[in-house]
Amino acid sequence: MAQVSELAGLQTAARGMFGERIIAWADHLASWSETADGLTCTYLSTAHLAVAKEIAVLMKKAGLAVEIDTVENVVGRYKSPAPSAKTVIVGSHYDTVRNAGKYDGRLGILIGLAVAEHILRNGITLPFNLEVIAFAEEEGVRFPASYIGSRAVAGRFEERLLESRDAKGITLAQALLENGADPKAIPALARRAEALAGYLEIHIEQGPVLLEANLPVGVVTAIAGGSRYLVTIDGEAGHAGTVPMSSRRDAVTAAAEMTLFVESRCNRPGLVGTVGRFSVPGGATNIIPGRCEISLDIRSGDDAVRLAAVVDILAEIQRIAQRRSVKATTTQALETPAVPCSPRLQEAFAASIARAGLPVRRLPSGAGHDAVMFDGLTDIGMLFVRSGNGGVSHSPRETVSADDADIAARILLDVLVNLKDV
Amino acid sequence: MAQVSELAGLQTAARGMFGERIIAWADHLASWSETADGLTCTYLSTAHLAVAKEIAVLMKKAGLAVEIDTVENVVGRYKSPAPSAKTVIVGSHYDTVRNAGKYDGRLGILIGLAVAEHILRNGITLPFNLEVIAFAEEEGVRFPASYIGSRAVAGRFEERLLESRDAKGITLAQALLENGADPKAIPALARRAEALAGYLEIHIEQGPVLLEANLPVGVVTAIAGGSRYLVTIDGEAGHAGTVPMSSRRDAVTAAAEMTLFVESRCNRPGLVGTVGRFSVPGGATNIIPGRCEISLDIRSGDDAVRLAAVVDILAEIQRIAQRRSVKATTTQALETPAVPCSPRLQEAFAASIARAGLPVRRLPSGAGHDAVMFDGLTDIGMLFVRSGNGGVSHSPRETVSADDADIAARILLDVLVNLKDV
Repeated sequence: MAQVSELAGLQTAARGMFGERIIAWADHLASWSETADGLTCTYLSTAHLAVAKEIAVLMKKAGLAVEIDTVENVVGRYKSPAPSAKTVIVGSHYDTVRNAGKYDGRLGILIGLAVAEHILRNGITLPFNLEVIAFAEEEGVRFPASYIGSRAVAGRFEERLLESRDAKGITLAQALLENGADPKAIPALARRAEALAGYLEIHIEQGPVLLEANLPVGVVTAIAGGSRYLVTIDGEAGHAGTVPMSSRRDAVTAAAEMTLFVESRCNRPGLVGTVGRFSVPGGATNIIPGRCEISLDIRSGDDAVRLAAVVDILAEIQRIAQRRSVKATTTQALETPAVPCSPRLQEAFAASIARAGLPVRRLPSGAGHDAVMFDGLTDIGMLFVRSGNGGVSHSPRETVSADDADIAARILLDVLVNLKDV
Repeated sequence: MAQVSELAGLQTAARGMFGERIIAWADHLASWSETADGLTCTYLSTAHLAVAKEIAVLMKKAGLAVEIDTVENVVGRYKSPAPSAKTVIVGSHYDTVRNAGKYDGRLGILIGLAVAEHILRNGITLPFNLEVIAFAEEEGVRFPASYIGSRAVAGRFEERLLESRDAKGITLAQALLENGADPKAIPALARRAEALAGYLEIHIEQGPVLLEANLPVGVVTAIAGGSRYLVTIDGEAGHAGTVPMSSRRDAVTAAAEMTLFVESRCNRPGLVGTVGRFSVPGGATNIIPGRCEISLDIRSGDDAVRLAAVVDILAEIQRIAQRRSVKATTTQALETPAVPCSPRLQEAFAASIARAGLPVRRLPSGAGHDAVMFDGLTDIGMLFVRSGNGGVSHSPRETVSADDADIAARILLDVLVNLKDV
């Protein structure tokens, strides 16, 4: 691992003081789960409400003014003495996927908490109000809606989301009411752009780039945009023994060729392409597949790069279909533009990383994060922390080292104490 | 369509006299079905028992001595005046798959019936006993056992099959008892090799070879042997946005490459290879597939050709897996050697086709047929009749023309009256 030197302006923060504490907190929060084994903590479950209370306790101990809001976000505030100070939010989420790791989302909250606690204990004043927000929901597991927590704070919560139903048929509105919250109060959670000075999020990378580069942290350049398609290939079913190869209109071999084209076309820096679903409805060993369905997921931090790949892939799918006398129908399922991180906050993270004596690695985020909700409302900045274990995430095998958490915390602290022009 | 000239020795059979009659019979038998729409006639269903009775009626009208045996085969006999004559069986099956066509199996029975009727009406004597057998079960739809009818007649019925259960849990033994049949009587249905002079089967091709060659009939050289494998590919699941292409161990792209190799390696005459199942358990658009399962089905009329392909394919699967850092596990699911048709009976069919002024096309059967059960017991000979509609079978779109049925019947008649050395 690269060595981190003492950070400028952080004489108060000894190396190693944050890391073990953050990991211990993450272990502690993981003790509440909906399941006997592993960690599952979905929106407004008993485990989820307990974790919110526990985060509030930790924030209070740190000296923050704490509120659990209508949608169960836990908000810890440290007011600036500056008159009419704007607010910098450090946020991430505390809900999890099913059978999750301990760090996706929570690492960013706990680093924010550790840094805020340090600032308060050392009587450091800031020219902005600091809020550490533990967003209640980001993963979209319980309801067919995601980013519920940050959506509310960013003023993007649409009333129709209240009618989303979970697997038991309970609407989001009902779930909030049962928790004693008034859904009508959600719009009031929205922040005004002019009151904000920036949104910062620390998150585990959930990929292997930093691990392979042997770096503890990296500056996120953008949250990748994505294009998703469903491709249905209709050929002709036939008997696997009786139809010669030259007479076949096999949907699976066509789909296989399309899949390999997606892989080769997206094999360049800053671009990824995935066929995650591949199915033959009613497929049998002795039947030439007459139909096949595949999904496409193309992402890039650069919209032009992504869209050029999509154009090439859709064209090649039709060429393959024509050559093989099958019909390919492509349906767009999702199209989200990339969300760039603000150059100013990228530079702020880069400067702190450089001050720490570490190489500055910039990389896009392939996954979405709460930061996306603040796009257009305020500047956003993100720092990735190296994922261990091959970069695996959304899995109990997800890991972060205490050393890396420590470095990330010290960099956040350095960024905050050096943040100008707010 | 190629023209068929008058067949030698068949002055009694005018061109066109069989075809319309056979097609009308097939339409008539299709009027019994388990379903309101379409044709489904599975073993020992009400529709199936009704069809057996109707075939018996048709056989009686033709002058044959008829018996419905223990397993519901309908056997029509025409005895030879020759002392200690052996028996030639003309057989095929009358059960169907679900939502079937009218000709798979039944065409062979009805051609045999039309020809036997003609022989009887014209007082033609044969040096062998002729039996037209409508086998009760070949498709293996109701019970996890196939060829039940021909298996019994060929002496290959194993007692353990009686414990096979249908979807409702009814055993084959119970189903037979409910039909008033004694399962204990099945072994007595077995024919002795020394009493048989050959087994002939006419069947629709269920493929496009004759259609594309513009020929009404073809001589079957062998019933293809088959090798079936299940291939499980284990890679590593990952987030479709966060794992760079170069770090992936994607099970689906590996499987796609394997699938295209199967296709290209089997793209030569006399060989077919199919990936009929291709699945990603738990696959999702935004997850790099960690596991994929595909099936392999490799067939050839020539065992050496098939086995060489299997060796190449299994080796290439491992090479692809190694290059992509995934694990491929191959499990053999089925291995059946090819069943050759007897050269003597192939020549008998070929000579009749040539006498009809038609080109002699020889082709393997990719599908199994009742004939397989008689391998090793007596000489087997098969004639394929052109399938219409692209060669589609196991479908309501299955067709045979009256002209082709007529030609096939006239060739069978010619073969029978010219059969020597029995």
